Amino acid sequence: MSTDKNLSPFNFKYNREVKTYEVDFQHVVHNAIYFYYFEEARIEYLKNLGFSIKGEITISNSQFVVVHNQADYHEPARLGDMLEILVRMSKIGRSSFTYEMEIVREDGRHICSGLTTVVTIDRENGHPKPIPESLRKSVENFEGVALNAAAD
Amino acid sequence: MSTDKNLSPFNFKYNREVKTYEVDFQHVVHNAIYFYYFEEARIEYLKNLGFSIKGEITISNSQFVVVHNQADYHEPARLGDMLEILVRMSKIGRSSFTYEMEIVREDGRHICSGLTTVVTIDRENGHPKPIPESLRKSVENFEGVALNAAAD
Amino acid sequence: MSTDKNLSPFNFKYNREVKTYEVDFQHVVHNAIYFYYFEEARIEYLKNLGFSIKGEITISNSQFVVVHNQADYHEPARLGDMLEILVRMSKIGRSSFTYEMEIVREDGRHICSGLTTVVTIDRENGHPKPIPESLRKSVENFEGVALNAAAD
Amino acid sequence: MSTDKNLSPFNFKYNREVKTYEVDFQHVVHNAIYFYYFEEARIEYLKNLGFSIKGEITISNSQFVVVHNQADYHEPARLGDMLEILVRMSKIGRSSFTYEMEIVREDGRHICSGLTTVVTIDRENGHPKPIPESLRKSVENFEGVALNAAAD
Repeated sequence: MSTDKNLSPFNFKYNREVKTYEVDFQHVVHNAIYFYYFEEARIEYLKNLGFSIKGEITISNSQFVVVHNQADYHEPARLGDMLEILVRMSKIGRSSFTYEMEIVREDGRHICSGLTTVVTIDRENGHPKPIPESLRKSVENFEGVALNAAAD
Repeated sequence: MSTDKNLSPFNFKYNREVKTYEVDFQHVVHNAIYFYYFEEARIEYLKNLGFSIKGEITISNSQFVVVHNQADYHEPARLGDMLEILVRMSKIGRSSFTYEMEIVREDGRHICSGLTTVVTIDRENGHPKPIPESLRKSVENFEGVALNAAAD
Repeated sequence: MSTDKNLSPFNFKYNREVKTYEVDFQHVVHNAIYFYYFEEARIEYLKNLGFSIKGEITISNSQFVVVHNQADYHEPARLGDMLEILVRMSKIGRSSFTYEMEIVREDGRHICSGLTTVVTIDRENGHPKPIPESLRKSVENFEGVALNAAAD
Repeated sequence: MSTDKNLSPFNFKYNREVKTYEVDFQHVVHNAIYFYYFEEARIEYLKNLGFSIKGEITISNSQFVVVHNQADYHEPARLGDMLEILVRMSKIGRSSFTYEMEIVREDGRHICSGLTTVVTIDRENGHPKPIPESLRKSVENFEGVALNAAAD
């Protein structure tokens, strides 16, 4: 369960403490809870780019739907642990984009790695549509690299 | 759904933003989620008194079990709302104690009122036992009043 | 934590097994989870009366908002326990109604008692409105008593 | 978001209705909730093989830890949808095993595909240990194929 992944090139971090109700009968954070952590961290990532998250999550009449999620659990997190969640958008396609997330505990242990792919849909008709330019531009500017990979 | 409760004598506040996964299909925070908010705020209250919450919640070999919960919902909270959760211990009996909680949104609206009664049990045998003196003393010191009401 | 409540006059029961992810680090069902159980059982109660719950919960252009919740926890439920949730509507006012719920384990132990008050609101403008007649009639017919108490 | 996967060789199915509190503000089942569905279905799979799940999940002094989770979301599920969750153990290694899960709605639509890898650990010291023979035998018997792939 070790990892030799390069954890360095993350420009965004979000701190999150493990809550009582997230710990299961095996005394560890339940495996599904990490997907809430990942989502929380992605929302904070978007807020950090200047996008408003009030009432709903809409950018230029686009909404976002998760089409793929994965997590590798390296070590359990426990009640009261302070976690650092690293987030970056790692790929932008025409209508979808992919986030990478890493969770590291304050003692430096690598807890969990995640990957989420999101598709842009039209708010009115629910059909896929191109990623809003404002989002693409903001992310490219923030991540400082060309992200226009073939994520679709 | 208005309230004329006196919200002033709370010495502890905890800020908490509404997360995406806490909002239900009616676009408001789900009614059960408030009990997580209340618990989070009570834990922060205890941490603020100096009690450690790492791995488990045990004070002087005592554990704590919720025996009563109630909530009055005054106004809905929505995605992205920043909430202030006021907490105080309002009653201490021999083996049980009661918390009052109020949730106020950053625009001043009164969202929710809660009441939770907790019983102290022995960590080894699960039987009720007197509240740890360290907890009683800390709370009395913090709240600045005699709280020894007949909560049992 | 005993109870001498009369558990007999419930005409509706819903069976529900305790799931892995509902059990917390103290090896019991988390206190907030019971409010999900109560809601599930209320929905089954309405379905049993013939109301459809697909996509949203709307009866005659009315929606329903929980304004009060309470639970008394008599004994903990644990992983794999099979629970029987008894539900009845116990009061109907002009625009609000109240449910009583009791949870009993298959071995006969009384686990939890709940009370929930719901307000009817207009689907379009969100304002309180009278309870739909179809709902009132169905409940009165099912419960076999005059429920027109002053719940408002 | 269509799929041409072969969904036929599943010997176990679990039916599960979408609950009110599992639907998010976008009116679909939240992406993290599927990992609860998957876990529920895996537990039912084990119960169907004759393993008892009461109080904790232990087979021959072994406990089980999820080390990998993934989900592909094909179509959203909504409030009140009746889902069929297909489960099979698809790989058994020395100390780990992998489940495949498919979620199909009652109208035949393919909702979600999942994959979960679980590691066997010793209940006493938390170290990985070989999969209990009773589990291996039961699964091989049930699935009717040689599953001894290199999952480790």
